Amino acid sequence: MQPNTKPARLPLNGVDTPNLLATINFVAGQPELAKFQFRAHNEWVEGTHSKSVMLGFHGAGQEQKHAKAYYADSDHPAVLCGADHGPTPVEWLLHALASCLMSGVANIAAARGIKLTKVRCSVDGDIDLRGILGISDEVRNGFQNITVAFEIEGDAPSEKLQQLVEQARARSAVFDVLTNGVPVTVGVKTIQ
Amino acid sequence: MQPNTKPARLPLNGVDTPNLLATINFVAGQPELAKFQFRAHNEWVEGTHSKSVMLGFHGAGQEQKHAKAYYADSDHPAVLCGADHGPTPVEWLLHALASCLMSGVANIAAARGIKLTKVRCSVDGDIDLRGILGISDEVRNGFQNITVAFEIEGDAPSEKLQQLVEQARARSAVFDVLTNGVPVTVGVKTIQ
Repeated sequence: MQPNTKPARLPLNGVDTPNLLATINFVAGQPELAKFQFRAHNEWVEGTHSKSVMLGFHGAGQEQKHAKAYYADSDHPAVLCGADHGPTPVEWLLHALASCLMSGVANIAAARGIKLTKVRCSVDGDIDLRGILGISDEVRNGFQNITVAFEIEGDAPSEKLQQLVEQARARSAVFDVLTNGVPVTVGVKTIQ
Repeated sequence: MQPNTKPARLPLNGVDTPNLLATINFVAGQPELAKFQFRAHNEWVEGTHSKSVMLGFHGAGQEQKHAKAYYADSDHPAVLCGADHGPTPVEWLLHALASCLMSGVANIAAARGIKLTKVRCSVDGDIDLRGILGISDEVRNGFQNITVAFEIEGDAPSEKLQQLVEQARARSAVFDVLTNGVPVTVGVKTIQ
């Protein structure tokens, strides 16, 4: 996206396109505003059940808050000896990928003046649990592969609609970290 | 974890330890049962707001379902021109990591006979949005780093409690894909 060469766009697909493009131009001139930190705070409940809250984050030069605190449960299903109080952690990962690509499709469509009528995607991840169960050291812990299948409908030729998904993939934060990896540091403080 | 050398354990921390260890032994003898597929189905709502459902999955040799369908919203916050109908996709990713490590801590503590009283973690991810906003091709789209900070309390010495988190990290599906990457294939079908 080269914001200065875009034609003027009206709001579309529920995206406030003029505001989005103005924001991009504004941040381009003040790169320190682009430094964000997102956070999840998680607390163990019982068994494999835990609950996260997502509320505060840092960005645009200051502390920010969501409109409200968002809570999410996670658990293992009965077949994996959990109590099934929520999706599994790996399903949350698939949801993160799906929603990241979907936000991108909507923003990019608006910037390109394409009206969307329906967009869906299915995200499947294949995993061999012999890794996390400690049965085989030759099996990785995580997904062996993830497959995303989009269905998209809008007022543009098929090729233009496909390019929306391609550009969303090329600019997706979650796709990037999943395919390229990211350094993760884990620290522990014990309460005595 | 080498299931055949574990001492007999009672249920602990809400984990049905005997069932968990029996499951591991059963799967060790029938590796095809360990092949799982998890799924998220996402539908675009409006703007950057989308909704996923997580219900069916495949594993233990057959199609499975959660106790109920789990729904989750995702959106961008107002400062990023969204309507803030839910956490951002990247916060969902942090929740996935937090909850994966947390499930591991609970299962491993039960297998080691350690009673937990409180476990919390904060997961922070730093991101420079010039990547996804298309302002700079030298800035990656995703998190530059993720930091996990655990606080753990239980009936074991500090060193043993710290080892629980270390073993959870070593056997976490989400930690694996985030730090080592995973192949992701994206397909598109246009609706005409």
